[in-house]
Amino acid sequence: MSTSTSPDHPGAAPVKVVRTLADGRAIIYFDAQPGNVRDSVDRRELEDAPTHTELRHDPLADQWVVVAGHRQARTFLPPSSECPLCPTHGDQLTEIPEGDYDVVVFENRFPSLTQHDPGQDAEVYDERTRHGFGRCEVVCFTSDHGSSLANVPAERIGLVLDAWIDRTLDLSAIDGVEYVFIFENRGVEIGVTLSHPHGQIYAYPFVPPRDEQIRTSARSFHDRTGTDLFAHIIEQEVSDADRVLYDGEHWIAFIPRAARWPFEIQLFTKRAISRLPDLTEAEKVEFATMYLRILKALDSTLGVQMPYIAAWHQAPVHGDEQFSRLFLEIFSLRRAPGKLKYLAGSESAAAVWINDICPEDAAQMLRDAMGASEE
Amino acid sequence: MSTSTSPDHPGAAPVKVVRTLADGRAIIYFDAQPGNVRDSVDRRELEDAPTHTELRHDPLADQWVVVAGHRQARTFLPPSSECPLCPTHGDQLTEIPEGDYDVVVFENRFPSLTQHDPGQDAEVYDERTRHGFGRCEVVCFTSDHGSSLANVPAERIGLVLDAWIDRTLDLSAIDGVEYVFIFENRGVEIGVTLSHPHGQIYAYPFVPPRDEQIRTSARSFHDRTGTDLFAHIIEQEVSDADRVLYDGEHWIAFIPRAARWPFEIQLFTKRAISRLPDLTEAEKVEFATMYLRILKALDSTLGVQMPYIAAWHQAPVHGDEQFSRLFLEIFSLRRAPGKLKYLAGSESAAAVWINDICPEDAAQMLRDAMGASEE
Repeated sequence: MSTSTSPDHPGAAPVKVVRTLADGRAIIYFDAQPGNVRDSVDRRELEDAPTHTELRHDPLADQWVVVAGHRQARTFLPPSSECPLCPTHGDQLTEIPEGDYDVVVFENRFPSLTQHDPGQDAEVYDERTRHGFGRCEVVCFTSDHGSSLANVPAERIGLVLDAWIDRTLDLSAIDGVEYVFIFENRGVEIGVTLSHPHGQIYAYPFVPPRDEQIRTSARSFHDRTGTDLFAHIIEQEVSDADRVLYDGEHWIAFIPRAARWPFEIQLFTKRAISRLPDLTEAEKVEFATMYLRILKALDSTLGVQMPYIAAWHQAPVHGDEQFSRLFLEIFSLRRAPGKLKYLAGSESAAAVWINDICPEDAAQMLRDAMGASEE
Repeated sequence: MSTSTSPDHPGAAPVKVVRTLADGRAIIYFDAQPGNVRDSVDRRELEDAPTHTELRHDPLADQWVVVAGHRQARTFLPPSSECPLCPTHGDQLTEIPEGDYDVVVFENRFPSLTQHDPGQDAEVYDERTRHGFGRCEVVCFTSDHGSSLANVPAERIGLVLDAWIDRTLDLSAIDGVEYVFIFENRGVEIGVTLSHPHGQIYAYPFVPPRDEQIRTSARSFHDRTGTDLFAHIIEQEVSDADRVLYDGEHWIAFIPRAARWPFEIQLFTKRAISRLPDLTEAEKVEFATMYLRILKALDSTLGVQMPYIAAWHQAPVHGDEQFSRLFLEIFSLRRAPGKLKYLAGSESAAAVWINDICPEDAAQMLRDAMGASEE
């Protein structure tokens, strides 16, 4: 794979092996160290994965909606003995044929977007309907079912980052892919249907509306002021100081001043870069330790494991890099131990966000938790 | 109040009485028939309602976020014996001093937006911070705690509609209010903290982003085609036919072709109007029976009471009416009896919606439920 150095194995790149599952989907092993053959065969009898998804244009929002009817049947909170993301063990056949793994990526069996030829369905396509083209991958962070990304060693975060970079490069090279979106949903509170520690990657055939909006904001800010929006935001956060959670050599993390969610964090590199593959080795190493500190603080702040969504924003595959900047956002809908923030009328129907926690208070809670874990 | 005729009492307008609660908030009774004095005094000792909320500009989304820290303390799922929306009964003092009511509206005790003078807080306001100006009202649909809007008589829907129209007019007249947003959140699944049947009204100091987007889409469609977007959408839905739920003399209701939610319905008048006060008596009467049929169908489709958000979109208080049209949307996050649609990474971080139910299938389910209730 890339020429990057694995922190697990200084000086050597992680080993990438591509295999195929019983229904033809790709599975990709990322090993911190060489020596694993990864030639176990998927012994399941699988029907072909569902292929039909559709993009429909919503004329009021002027954006595409994915209609993926087959996903109603997807695996829903199976008992841990039937977890499809655990390694295969004896006759317990899972999505991962190997008996163990470090990090593994495979194509989602219930994808929202697919690379399959739509065949006859293509006949109905018109200006308001398109094939649900794209690719959905699952990223397993560890073979340990009961763990979480907050509880792996820093070296493992480095390997996950290497996998994310590899997938950004590979998926960006697919004709028709316009955006590589890397994210993690964690916690039943936000609808996670599999509890095994994992993230996802969507290769979209368009730039997602939120990223399009961010680019529009950056372009408009530049037109108005002649300066860079992202640099301006970081400067203001550093100057305000009271929402900064981490200020390191290469990274800064803060709760944004106009946070929409009770707990919401943005992580920027200090150097302006636009995509994950632009990260230097030093930036990757610092990210791993910083991210672990923040994830652990999230889990300890309220005394309950924090549900969250974490998502990387990066530049579209094609088009101007000037108005995109790489950053990670993490946000949680939990506002107190027994209370969640719901997106009700104001948020869901009017798109006006109401945050019941002052961002400065949330920052203080997280800083306290980060400080406590240092001791 | 208005010269409209109440269906409860043909020929006479409903009676509107304005009173004041112990902490100075307004309470407004709407009675179907005259004869109620409504002079019961609020005997509670209430501290002044919290007044400090703030608007903060989110530079990435280029929109305002409401920060309302005091709302963390709001009443949360009280036992029904302590419901603040029930009429006052003996020493059980509630938000409504009267012993009974038809429809009552009052200012929210835990508002996201307020008309209070910000006082010294105003000193911190700048181009990225504003006073959380506006007004939040609660609309109680019935004094019957265990009922719901789906279970009131059609005449009551008419009275609720009269109250919505009255509030649209009154709130639009407040200097600084730019949008009157009327909505109902129903069901603990979407975070309702009080189970008594009620809706809400937000008078925003700006046009909400979703309504701004709809106006932008309509303007851009008109520039491109010379025709009206809303008329075009209705024509296409009538032509497709397979998602239409109701096609009456004055109203049409359908599941939009690119529905974002598992169950999502849009209700348009056939006549192009832009605001609730534009409704004729005949449109109001037909709305009541249609809406009851749809709400009842929502509750019977999956065999469980359906959580939903219902929201009226209308023209901003100021500005061009051409690119706004009155419509009601209702949507639910329930996708199956034991399953909810969650807004996870794709929706919440990328704003790409994935709908797991084909809109045509959802329409068939709702039509079946509407047909069954006719028999």
